[in-house]
Amino acid sequence: MPAGTLLYAQSGGVTAVINATAGAVVEAARKHRVRVLTADDGILGVLRESLFDTSKETIAAIRALAHTPGGAFGSCRFKLKSPGEDRRRYERLIEVFRAHDVRWFLYNGGNDSADTAWKVSQLAEEFGYPLTCVGVPKTIDNDLPVTDCCPGFGSAAKYTAVSVREAALDVASMSETSTKVFVYEAMGRHAGWLAAAGGLAGQSPDDAPQIILFPERAYDEAAFLARVEKVVAKVGWCVVVASEGIRDADGRFIADAGAGQDAFGHTQLGGVAAHLAGRVHDALGMKVHWALPDYLQRSARHIASKTDLAHAQAVGRKAVEFALAGRNATMPVIVRTSDSPYRWKIEAAPLAKVANREKKLPAGFIRRDGFGITAAARRYLEPLVRGEAYPPYGRDGMPNYVRLRNPRVRRVLPGWAD
Amino acid sequence: MPAGTLLYAQSGGVTAVINATAGAVVEAARKHRVRVLTADDGILGVLRESLFDTSKETIAAIRALAHTPGGAFGSCRFKLKSPGEDRRRYERLIEVFRAHDVRWFLYNGGNDSADTAWKVSQLAEEFGYPLTCVGVPKTIDNDLPVTDCCPGFGSAAKYTAVSVREAALDVASMSETSTKVFVYEAMGRHAGWLAAAGGLAGQSPDDAPQIILFPERAYDEAAFLARVEKVVAKVGWCVVVASEGIRDADGRFIADAGAGQDAFGHTQLGGVAAHLAGRVHDALGMKVHWALPDYLQRSARHIASKTDLAHAQAVGRKAVEFALAGRNATMPVIVRTSDSPYRWKIEAAPLAKVANREKKLPAGFIRRDGFGITAAARRYLEPLVRGEAYPPYGRDGMPNYVRLRNPRVRRVLPGWAD
Repeated sequence: MPAGTLLYAQSGGVTAVINATAGAVVEAARKHRVRVLTADDGILGVLRESLFDTSKETIAAIRALAHTPGGAFGSCRFKLKSPGEDRRRYERLIEVFRAHDVRWFLYNGGNDSADTAWKVSQLAEEFGYPLTCVGVPKTIDNDLPVTDCCPGFGSAAKYTAVSVREAALDVASMSETSTKVFVYEAMGRHAGWLAAAGGLAGQSPDDAPQIILFPERAYDEAAFLARVEKVVAKVGWCVVVASEGIRDADGRFIADAGAGQDAFGHTQLGGVAAHLAGRVHDALGMKVHWALPDYLQRSARHIASKTDLAHAQAVGRKAVEFALAGRNATMPVIVRTSDSPYRWKIEAAPLAKVANREKKLPAGFIRRDGFGITAAARRYLEPLVRGEAYPPYGRDGMPNYVRLRNPRVRRVLPGWAD
Repeated sequence: MPAGTLLYAQSGGVTAVINATAGAVVEAARKHRVRVLTADDGILGVLRESLFDTSKETIAAIRALAHTPGGAFGSCRFKLKSPGEDRRRYERLIEVFRAHDVRWFLYNGGNDSADTAWKVSQLAEEFGYPLTCVGVPKTIDNDLPVTDCCPGFGSAAKYTAVSVREAALDVASMSETSTKVFVYEAMGRHAGWLAAAGGLAGQSPDDAPQIILFPERAYDEAAFLARVEKVVAKVGWCVVVASEGIRDADGRFIADAGAGQDAFGHTQLGGVAAHLAGRVHDALGMKVHWALPDYLQRSARHIASKTDLAHAQAVGRKAVEFALAGRNATMPVIVRTSDSPYRWKIEAAPLAKVANREKKLPAGFIRRDGFGITAAARRYLEPLVRGEAYPPYGRDGMPNYVRLRNPRVRRVLPGWAD
């Protein structure tokens, strides 16, 4: 039994399968007889010494995490500054780590969280505290570099593709006397991965979605409206999938009306679909509806991808392995070795290569006209949405999502003010 | 083999299981060796003599309708006026019926469609054409009178309850540093059935949704904001389910900004969630997100209710039985004989009693404070969302929804201008 405690925390926007990663971490650590604490609300829980002891949970509850969406331990949007700018917080982290004998720290998140993980991984060198820090990938945005894909994306992608296919059948049925144009707004601040996944809803250019708007292409209103008109004339109706992050030729977010900023300094988006719908209505005089699934798309465990679930569990298990092996400042990443049959494995990547970089859609994934996906995009996307992994349901017709008892760890340190 | 043709058509907003009704109609009629034609886009297809011959479809394709959302034959929003006002259209209907030897007409829809079906059922008496017309219930709004519930509602209700439960787990995870309030907008023009179904997401008053806004209660902004503030203070975050149809004390739709009218003369809604979110943001200064699932909620066959599917198929089979038995101007309705265990049967109701009436939520289903559902509402709702009925999926990770070949029936009449 290795001496010391493993601390796991969740950070950034949660996903349908981040808890599956958490469950895999706890189960893998138990096999090595390593105690796992979790921090409440990500790195904030470490600073506040607000920790939970997973050893008090039954193995059944831990396994039920695999089918429970959201972040069971709480997540946060909070970015550590550099040790030079924020020495006090780093010293506090070490104080808490030391008080609870934390030797391994696993931080499960996206781009910003990888940056935090990387900073924490430098503690040993900068402050002389012996810690192995491993980042664990997660983001529905699928925009982490190095890894072939990000746990959480496949399930959100499946939700998107299925929802667009279903809504399109509705629109097609009603188009003769009702809605002609339907706009679906997909998440993705700077990269159009989820919007691209909407493309899996159809096969031919006349299938829905007939138009996809990517943040990787400047939004041209005249070209968009002309395309809508053309599609409606040919097909009778038109389904548009628009990324929340589309911008005009000057780089201004289309959704920027009334937008604020989140804690990371990102523009807070929302409203692209409503805007596009209004333009179609006013400029083309067509009846239009729109959907903004918002958090539904990233928490829809009921339609999770089996492939995605397998990825999420694998990175959790490997993160424990890397941590116990002392592979500091690494992240388990998914490496695709074959498209068909789909084959993949987990390797270790340096956290420094992952942090603060965003992977956009390759140009070869966007059709030449800018309004759809290519065969290469399909080859990439399809395996990620493959397979179903339904949660168990109760007699009440509702999914049995687990609520952990989360036994609190006794605080041993004096209080702390963020 | 009874002489004559059975004509089936779909009308009004489609659902996740209206095609299941269609499939049951065709299969039941085949057992009686009755040919089934369908009309393109509801009653419009009859007027236009735009018909399809289902006998050319394989039984496998017909059965696949049970797991395919949308309206496979096209639907419409088109209301027949009275024979006195619109004699020309009624004569045309008879002309088309006669040309194709239609003896039985099944019209599958909601309130307005029941009115159309009732008018057509009077053809025999008013125009001397021997026809048996049977209405078949369907609406996600669940607002038809007489029947205990409406096919299509249970699946939309399940989608709503599951989506709210999932999104709430997301909001709870992130609330420490991110979104505090989440607003989900449910369909339901005049009745709060789907909003009420959102209440199944939680059990206690502190579970999400902590606030439901029903069209049956006047919207009071001050009371709403005070409640949001109170919930956030106690729980840390707040999930609101708002019906699209909420109105203020003067009866004005909250969503009315910029609204138009649909073909039935109803105000076209949408935007309640965005409005409420804006008020919470401005008045309380809280970070807020909102979702507008729109058509997703009524086409989500992937999360259909097994009970709802059974209802949809049963009304289809019974409609054929009633039609062949000459029970003109009737509708098969669902009668609940027991809550627990849930038991139900199909009976015949007079179409005249169903048409043009809306069943609102009973007062006993809304909690005294107006912000939640009662135990009586749960007893009613729970059986309707019970059971899963997943569609088959392909190797591409997508549901295998069927596309009928829809062989056209040769037109034998001169053209027609609507």
